[in-house]
Amino acid sequence: LDVSYLIGLFATVTFSVTGVLAARAHNMDLVGIIVVGVVTAVGGGTIRDMILAVPVFWVADANYLLAAVAAAVATFLARDRIQRRMQWLLYLDALGVAMFASLAVVKSLDLGLGAAPALVMGVITGIGGGIIRDLLTGRPTLIMSRDLYATPILFGVAVQLLLLRMPGVDPALATVIGGALIFGSRSAAVFLHWQMPDILTLPGGDS
Amino acid sequence: LDVSYLIGLFATVTFSVTGVLAARAHNMDLVGIIVVGVVTAVGGGTIRDMILAVPVFWVADANYLLAAVAAAVATFLARDRIQRRMQWLLYLDALGVAMFASLAVVKSLDLGLGAAPALVMGVITGIGGGIIRDLLTGRPTLIMSRDLYATPILFGVAVQLLLLRMPGVDPALATVIGGALIFGSRSAAVFLHWQMPDILTLPGGDS
Amino acid sequence: LDVSYLIGLFATVTFSVTGVLAARAHNMDLVGIIVVGVVTAVGGGTIRDMILAVPVFWVADANYLLAAVAAAVATFLARDRIQRRMQWLLYLDALGVAMFASLAVVKSLDLGLGAAPALVMGVITGIGGGIIRDLLTGRPTLIMSRDLYATPILFGVAVQLLLLRMPGVDPALATVIGGALIFGSRSAAVFLHWQMPDILTLPGGDS
Repeated sequence: LDVSYLIGLFATVTFSVTGVLAARAHNMDLVGIIVVGVVTAVGGGTIRDMILAVPVFWVADANYLLAAVAAAVATFLARDRIQRRMQWLLYLDALGVAMFASLAVVKSLDLGLGAAPALVMGVITGIGGGIIRDLLTGRPTLIMSRDLYATPILFGVAVQLLLLRMPGVDPALATVIGGALIFGSRSAAVFLHWQMPDILTLPGGDS
Repeated sequence: LDVSYLIGLFATVTFSVTGVLAARAHNMDLVGIIVVGVVTAVGGGTIRDMILAVPVFWVADANYLLAAVAAAVATFLARDRIQRRMQWLLYLDALGVAMFASLAVVKSLDLGLGAAPALVMGVITGIGGGIIRDLLTGRPTLIMSRDLYATPILFGVAVQLLLLRMPGVDPALATVIGGALIFGSRSAAVFLHWQMPDILTLPGGDS
Repeated sequence: LDVSYLIGLFATVTFSVTGVLAARAHNMDLVGIIVVGVVTAVGGGTIRDMILAVPVFWVADANYLLAAVAAAVATFLARDRIQRRMQWLLYLDALGVAMFASLAVVKSLDLGLGAAPALVMGVITGIGGGIIRDLLTGRPTLIMSRDLYATPILFGVAVQLLLLRMPGVDPALATVIGGALIFGSRSAAVFLHWQMPDILTLPGGDS
């Protein structure tokens, strides 16, 4: 419990940092930056909790808000130093996605959801904040890219759900494996520039 | 009851198919396509249920998710054959809108809502998924078009609400009439290229 | 209570009018205009209520819907006369923002929220409707501007929360002061063309 709380806070910080840097080229002011950082960090979990009809996590515990605001301000101040390490941020973002998505599956199953809605909850929590960030800052959403972003989440969460169904598998282990698979496959996609094969992609511009 | 369940599933399939085809020109991969299909299919109803503070329908019954995913994948596979019949899709979409909107009114009234909020619920359920789809795929939302899309919903739902107030009118009949009016007026708008008259439209570009 | 109800209705009318006029150059028809007016007017409060898990305000009381629709239609009809006074609308909008945000803080605290989530609720209620309007009509969201919009809300709400913590301060007075500070600082920003200083703004185009 305590560990998953710390992981949640760490993922919040991660998403706030990467949210601010993703929006960075856009001539924004500090207040806008804080809004983008906070929205990226808590947006996906907020949609998750509204759909699950449970109290929204940052209303119940303001530490998530404070962590996201502090991370956004720190990122604004240190932006020149961070910018030289932009590639690292994709891995940091992958780590945040992995943690948010696999924990969201646990939360959903604890509330009695079936496997299919729990999988959807994992995806929503993993990509929701990033999509709201893209909408607010006028960027094409990650849905429009052939980069593998939602696919690693689907893959890791599906394995996590399969393991959780097997008798004798420790639920915590299944969650760690699911998260590790999300992080590993997303990182591999970044490092090796994986894209969806053509056969699974619509040819553009022929409508 | 059973019939309205089947109608709901059919409307979900309809929206997933038309959602995928509407987003089709955009160089998307299969996972993105599934996301767009599912969001278009269940987005409006999800907003409806969150506003109504009732359990979101696809969390309670995963068949809606499975139907939307299956329809999105099938549309991806059969896209070349379907593309030749694009005009038919506008009528299929009109059918989905009519079913979703008129059923949402029934659900809202059952929960004790007044006529005005129930009418808004019908509109939200009818156009919500399509608007989220447009935002995710970077297209102008249907609000920005002079094509008649929300107007047929308003018209059919208003008649449905009037009929439901009349003594001696079978509620199921009122709902069927409301849905038929939405489908009929939207189909006529498509077939006859109806647009709002100039007097009810803002002249563009004069701000 | 009665006074805050009337203030809420007045703010609803204000947002509907400014929402319609902000979207005005876009070749929209009357139904689209009503949708934009209503969404701008009730969007922020709807997100607030969904996050707070309380009944959405316009479901419980349809007067908000009727006020927003009437204001949107009236604005459409009187658009040429209003257009000559566009500058006034920024002050009217500031008044609506001030009322919505400071009342949202009161509602949030009444529901037992802490200061940080209550502050976020004030901001969401103040800017949520305008952001949804911008997304629906394809305009850059107000987050992307250096104009001071969210900043006056943060300032006024923070002072309101501080005053509410002080012993012996009348809560109603604290709310009026908070709202007056939002209105005053936003109006000053409009009148004096205040923008964020460069040191608090990301230089554009260097990503």
